[in-house]
Amino acid sequence: MRPGDVIQTKRDGGELSPEQITAFVSAAAHLEGSGWKEYHLTALLMAIYLRGMTPIETAHLTRAMADSGKRFDLSDLPGPKVGKHSTGGVGDKTSLILGPLAAACGVLVPKMSGRGLGNSGGTLDKLESIPGFNVNLTEEHLRDALKKVGLAMFGQTKDLAPADKTLYALRDVTATAESIPLITASILSKKLSEGISGLVMDVKTGRGAFMKTREQSRALAELLVKVGTANGLKMSAFITAMDTPLGRYIGHALEVIESIETLKGRGPRDLTELSVKLATRMVALAGIADAAESERKVRFALSSGAGLEVFRKCIDQQGGDPKVIDDYDRLPGASGVAAVVAERGGYITAMDSEKIGIAVRLLGGGRDRAEDRIDHGVGIVVLLKPGDAVKAGESVYGVRYRTPMTRDAALPLLQQSFTVGDAPPAEEPLVLEELN
Amino acid sequence: MRPGDVIQTKRDGGELSPEQITAFVSAAAHLEGSGWKEYHLTALLMAIYLRGMTPIETAHLTRAMADSGKRFDLSDLPGPKVGKHSTGGVGDKTSLILGPLAAACGVLVPKMSGRGLGNSGGTLDKLESIPGFNVNLTEEHLRDALKKVGLAMFGQTKDLAPADKTLYALRDVTATAESIPLITASILSKKLSEGISGLVMDVKTGRGAFMKTREQSRALAELLVKVGTANGLKMSAFITAMDTPLGRYIGHALEVIESIETLKGRGPRDLTELSVKLATRMVALAGIADAAESERKVRFALSSGAGLEVFRKCIDQQGGDPKVIDDYDRLPGASGVAAVVAERGGYITAMDSEKIGIAVRLLGGGRDRAEDRIDHGVGIVVLLKPGDAVKAGESVYGVRYRTPMTRDAALPLLQQSFTVGDAPPAEEPLVLEELN
Repeated sequence: MRPGDVIQTKRDGGELSPEQITAFVSAAAHLEGSGWKEYHLTALLMAIYLRGMTPIETAHLTRAMADSGKRFDLSDLPGPKVGKHSTGGVGDKTSLILGPLAAACGVLVPKMSGRGLGNSGGTLDKLESIPGFNVNLTEEHLRDALKKVGLAMFGQTKDLAPADKTLYALRDVTATAESIPLITASILSKKLSEGISGLVMDVKTGRGAFMKTREQSRALAELLVKVGTANGLKMSAFITAMDTPLGRYIGHALEVIESIETLKGRGPRDLTELSVKLATRMVALAGIADAAESERKVRFALSSGAGLEVFRKCIDQQGGDPKVIDDYDRLPGASGVAAVVAERGGYITAMDSEKIGIAVRLLGGGRDRAEDRIDHGVGIVVLLKPGDAVKAGESVYGVRYRTPMTRDAALPLLQQSFTVGDAPPAEEPLVLEELN
Repeated sequence: MRPGDVIQTKRDGGELSPEQITAFVSAAAHLEGSGWKEYHLTALLMAIYLRGMTPIETAHLTRAMADSGKRFDLSDLPGPKVGKHSTGGVGDKTSLILGPLAAACGVLVPKMSGRGLGNSGGTLDKLESIPGFNVNLTEEHLRDALKKVGLAMFGQTKDLAPADKTLYALRDVTATAESIPLITASILSKKLSEGISGLVMDVKTGRGAFMKTREQSRALAELLVKVGTANGLKMSAFITAMDTPLGRYIGHALEVIESIETLKGRGPRDLTELSVKLATRMVALAGIADAAESERKVRFALSSGAGLEVFRKCIDQQGGDPKVIDDYDRLPGASGVAAVVAERGGYITAMDSEKIGIAVRLLGGGRDRAEDRIDHGVGIVVLLKPGDAVKAGESVYGVRYRTPMTRDAALPLLQQSFTVGDAPPAEEPLVLEELN
């Protein structure tokens, strides 16, 4: 099969056969000797970007990408394995909350996560702000953690979905990243590698999300459900708003603190309710109980402190310092403190989470390139959110910074990231749609 | 300027700026240190293939590609320089006829040509069937030939339009060859390098041509005229039929013989008339005379033998054996002779020049890959053409072959390459359209 013929099929709007997709993915995983070059891959990626892919093609692509590397087989571990994935947003630390809650209800949660890039934080980076926490698990470590804790949080190993690594890197530099079929295959191929039987997707939409419009988000959510189902996963997808940051703390150590606070029952309402909703769906997908009973179980895991105990055990199991649960001073901080104040009184009418995400990156809490180091201690505390009344001169954000230079880079952006008006805005729901 | 941003502009259907086009072309010419990789180039080529390019973009692309290498400056040579280019067809040897005719009328013709690939013959290969003929001219040789003969026929030198070489090779393997803007830029960038002020284009259409439909051919011809004009060339374009081979001889040495015969006034009507028409347009574009007077001059160059004398001098000037003009036995031949006969009587109703082109290639007279060697002596003589009456058992083609194996590969295809019916087909014009 010549690469040019595969490219031509898609160029002309045709459907790629399973054999053509397998050839493409095998080449992406092991280029040498495949007869393909990177320049073939990117020509095909652009053709896919512009011509699209059917759900059937995307399902084949996903499976081939998962099969290009190691797939965990956890079928010998008794109990349902269910995963969760978010397309990424500012202040989104739900994984650190719902993982413990679902595990406390009897779900096995092998949670593979990524690192932050650009304006979104990554779960791995947040976890690594806990001293000693090791996200690099072997399969043995993973099995051990699932048996003892019910939850393991770890990074993508080198041998998982290698085709995705190649394609992701090429998409990033050839303007072919924002393709819904390619995004779907990239997400689900890695999730299939986790060895799960069910998956709850949180597709973020709005200013601070990868998908800016409701239509794009719905198209992605629908394709994720179809393609996941076609690959044998029980699927649920939520479309949730990402115009305003989720919760009030943004920055790695700050988000760990807010997650622990939430597991202690003291979290902000939006973060608590979304975490409960997603965890409830995980428990239901696991077949442990129906929807109503699942929610009851999750709320009890929260109120009883069972979820918090799972998180404590998880930290301990993965080499971290579990005392952080009770002593936040053991987490990295930043000594510089600044405030961003409202210039006039009224009500906060809108907040731009994208600008806030960029500000955190400018403070040193994000990466421009994958190899950049990040500062776990810096971040932003959102003191007032849309709908809140504000007085002239009152603080809207607290800023934790390391150096005056990074502070001065971030502050002007933060000043522009909210608007004050005379009346509170209409309240908008956080969960916009639910697809099963 | 980041490659991804340039790609994104075209991906989204935008118009590339001159600076973006220059960055792309400079990278194609000199990849190292450009910040571009081949995988960027092919992603952009696919985006161009699917999104198209405006005439203005194509004009910039053409100029940048010409400027990526050496451009002959022949402005010090007195006299108008006019070129001709054909998109390639089976049996198309007009360059060997119109070049001498136009030069005999006072046009300077610096004719840069290519080699055959696939089913089309190349002018350089035909010329090289003349013993000693050297197509590798330096600028000094070229100037000398134009001064002494008025005509030089030569191959693309290494330093001409290097960006085109890279892009052509990448297009070939990534299914992005058949893009009208990219074809236009590829053709015209090389023609601009010739140092000409006028260009006559022969865009072939039909079964034996690169462009199979009239619409594609017209789109290409129109864009060639627009883009050539935008780059300062006086342009004319003809759309001519390529369902049936042009003339009766196909194969390198055979086509040289037919060209000489035509210059002696004994050529087949279709070949003679098309050569006269194209040469007339070259003389007119050169500003030597108006259309009617130009045709008179060209016909006189033919009937007086002045064109033949230019060809003889050209062969001599470029190291070839000019005695071939009078002694065709000095050209390579093939000892095997076979015939393809009609199975029934009637009239030849159609002929498929694509199949005939493939048959010549199978005989050894064509290339699959650029590095293949070719056999100058083999070929096909078309004894009967559409409209001719034929008896059952009468020969339609004569075949000159080297080995029984190549003969047996070619004959079945030739047998399928014509149809016989009860009535002659409607006569179709050779020149379908003319654009100025």
